[in-house]
Amino acid sequence: MTVKLVVLYTQPEDTDSFEQHYAGTHMPLVEQIPGLQRTETGLVGAAADGGEMTFHRITELYFADQDAMQSAFGSDEGMATAADYQKIAPAGSRMFVVPVED
Amino acid sequence: MTVKLVVLYTQPEDTDSFEQHYAGTHMPLVEQIPGLQRTETGLVGAAADGGEMTFHRITELYFADQDAMQSAFGSDEGMATAADYQKIAPAGSRMFVVPVED
Repeated sequence: MTVKLVVLYTQPEDTDSFEQHYAGTHMPLVEQIPGLQRTETGLVGAAADGGEMTFHRITELYFADQDAMQSAFGSDEGMATAADYQKIAPAGSRMFVVPVED
Repeated sequence: MTVKLVVLYTQPEDTDSFEQHYAGTHMPLVEQIPGLQRTETGLVGAAADGGEMTFHRITELYFADQDAMQSAFGSDEGMATAADYQKIAPAGSRMFVVPVED
């Protein structure tokens, strides 16, 4: 069963700096992660419920299954990405593991 | 540009009731929405950051573009789905519009 990591980035203090770091440093690290099948990302355009714009960007990383995800984040590349996440993610950002239903 | 609606359902008071409503009533309504390309959903399995299990389920609805999404939610089927969302979504649940980057 496909498993994804859903990353919810809260609003950065400096959007331009965040975006430069994201595109220039973070995603290149993500793309090195072994076993990563694909990524999907986008800026949050609107809060469809009329509530707060809590999140700035939502990114998903897809893996073949739970084992592949665990191996990925145990790898050097996965750990480098996790270390960079600590630098880029604004306070309150969240990461959830979601097995995708067929 | 593909646009998706990302729905973050918080923890329901009664998980079984939520899941029955979701599978038996809500998703059948979603599937009637004109212009809907596909859905992706899954139960949150873990908080990868070690934080709170804020969300129970994450669902995404995909549309061809912003116009298609707007038409969809202006349709009778879209409004029926929105009305049912008000019934099923636990307090604090959120919905965000995210244009997907290529």
